[in-house]
Amino acid sequence: MNDLFERISTSFHAQGLMQTLGASLVSVQPGEVQIVLPYQKALSQQHGFLHAGAVSSVVDSAAGYAALTVAAEGYEVVTAEFKINLMRPAIGERFVAIGKVVNAGKLLTVCSGEVLAYGADAAAAPKVVALLQATIVNVKY
Amino acid sequence: MNDLFERISTSFHAQGLMQTLGASLVSVQPGEVQIVLPYQKALSQQHGFLHAGAVSSVVDSAAGYAALTVAAEGYEVVTAEFKINLMRPAIGERFVAIGKVVNAGKLLTVCSGEVLAYGADAAAAPKVVALLQATIVNVKY
Amino acid sequence: MNDLFERISTSFHAQGLMQTLGASLVSVQPGEVQIVLPYQKALSQQHGFLHAGAVSSVVDSAAGYAALTVAAEGYEVVTAEFKINLMRPAIGERFVAIGKVVNAGKLLTVCSGEVLAYGADAAAAPKVVALLQATIVNVKY
Amino acid sequence: MNDLFERISTSFHAQGLMQTLGASLVSVQPGEVQIVLPYQKALSQQHGFLHAGAVSSVVDSAAGYAALTVAAEGYEVVTAEFKINLMRPAIGERFVAIGKVVNAGKLLTVCSGEVLAYGADAAAAPKVVALLQATIVNVKY
Repeated sequence: MNDLFERISTSFHAQGLMQTLGASLVSVQPGEVQIVLPYQKALSQQHGFLHAGAVSSVVDSAAGYAALTVAAEGYEVVTAEFKINLMRPAIGERFVAIGKVVNAGKLLTVCSGEVLAYGADAAAAPKVVALLQATIVNVKY
Repeated sequence: MNDLFERISTSFHAQGLMQTLGASLVSVQPGEVQIVLPYQKALSQQHGFLHAGAVSSVVDSAAGYAALTVAAEGYEVVTAEFKINLMRPAIGERFVAIGKVVNAGKLLTVCSGEVLAYGADAAAAPKVVALLQATIVNVKY
Repeated sequence: MNDLFERISTSFHAQGLMQTLGASLVSVQPGEVQIVLPYQKALSQQHGFLHAGAVSSVVDSAAGYAALTVAAEGYEVVTAEFKINLMRPAIGERFVAIGKVVNAGKLLTVCSGEVLAYGADAAAAPKVVALLQATIVNVKY
Repeated sequence: MNDLFERISTSFHAQGLMQTLGASLVSVQPGEVQIVLPYQKALSQQHGFLHAGAVSSVVDSAAGYAALTVAAEGYEVVTAEFKINLMRPAIGERFVAIGKVVNAGKLLTVCSGEVLAYGADAAAAPKVVALLQATIVNVKY
C-alpha cells in the first residue's frame, strides 16, 4: 500500500496544475483515491464560489489515479472523457474529491467521482457538489 | 456588440480561476465566445502536457459565456453539467477554447465546445484536442 | 406507496416503446425505480447481444421515473440529457435497469442508473453492464 | 463506396433492434452515416412523442457505423459510452439520425451525432431534437 501511495504521489507532484491549485493527495487505496482542495479566492468563479473548472480538475485527477491503482504493471492511464454534474454551488472552505473504480477492463476503466464541500462547522455533514463519470484508457509506456 | 463584450468581460475578470490560469477573453459574439490560454508548466499534468483540468476549465467557461450572450435580460447562467472528450495530448504553446450555442431554450441552453492547440509553427493548422457538450441553466438573479 | 406505484405505472404503460421492447416496471420506491427487460432477438445488435439502444431505453426510463417519484405535486419530468457507459457486452436472459435519485433540486434532478445482466444460472451474481448519469428537468403541466 | 454501404448494411440488418424500431440505413459515406426512423405510436413515450430511448438507439447506431466506416481492416467497433442532450420534444413524422466522425484514433474514435425531426410540411426545415457525443472503441475480431 505504501508503494501504491508513493507511485501515485510521485505522479501527482509532477502535475503542475495540482500544485497551482493547491491540491493535495490525501488517500490512496486500491480502486479509490482522494484529493483535498482548500478554497481560495484564486480558484473562484464570478460569485466567489469554487470554479467548476477547479472542481473538475481535482475530481478528474482523483478518478484517473483511482484507475491507475488497478492498472496492470507497465501501464499508465489517460482520461479519454468525463462527464460531470455540478449539482449545487461549490461553497465551502475545503473540498474533497473522491474517485472510485466502477469497472476495470483490460483497455478501459470506468470510474465514478464526487466532490464533497466542507464548511467552517466541523460537525456539519459535507454536501456533495459534483458527480462525475469518466472513461480512462490504459496505455503502455 | 461592445456592450456584450464588456458584460462578459466584467464577469470573466471576476473569475479568480481564469486569472490564476492566465486565460484571456479573446472574442465575444452572440452565441460564440473564445478564450485563449498560453501554455505554462504550472498548468501541466505529469508528462508536461496541458492538464485536462485546465483544458476543461477554459472550454467550460467559453461555453458558459456563449450561453450568457443569448440569455434574456435579468438572467445569468450556471453550468448544470458538461461532458468532454480529451481526444489527443494537449501539446502546444497556446490553446484556444471555443464555446458555441447549439440550442437556446427558455430554461436550458445546450452548447458545444472545442479546444484548439497551436504550436510554435504559426503556419501549421491547429489541432483539436478536446470536444465538449454542455448544459447551461438560465437563472434569474 | 401504492399510489406512487400506480402513478408511475400509468405513465409507464402509456409509453409505446416500453411495450414494444417488452419491458415491465418491477419496483417503485421514493427515489428508486426498477425496470426489467427480458432478452429477445428482436432487441439485439449484430452479435446477438442486447443492443445499446435497448439498454439505454430502459435505464433512461428508470432514471426518469425515479426523478418523478420525488417531483413536487403538479410537476412531471423530462430527461434533459444522459451519459451512459456500456461497460461490457450486454449478454443475459434478463436485464434489470435501476434508476436512483442522487440529488433533487427544485428545477433539476440528477440521477444515476445501472443495468444488471442475469444469466441462466439463478445462483450466479448479475453483472453490471451499463452505468448512467442523467439530468432530469421538472416541468409544470 | 458501394462496398462500404454493403458492409455497413449487412451489420445493420443483423441488428434485431433496428428492425423492431423500423429504422433504415439511408446513407453511408466515409465518416458519416444516416439512419431514418419513421414515427409510430409503438415508439412513443407517455405524451406520444418519440421516446428518448428510440432517439438514442438510432443516433448511437449512426455514430457507431460512422466510426466503422473509418476503422482499419480487421477491426469492428463497439460504443464505449455516449452522452445525449434531448433538446426539445421529439415530435415529427420522420426522424433522421446523423453520426459523424470527429476524431479517429488508433484505438478510440470520437463521434458527434444529431437527430433531425421532419414534420408533415415537406417545405419546412427540420428541427434538431437531439445532440450526441460518443466514444467508440476499435476492437480486433
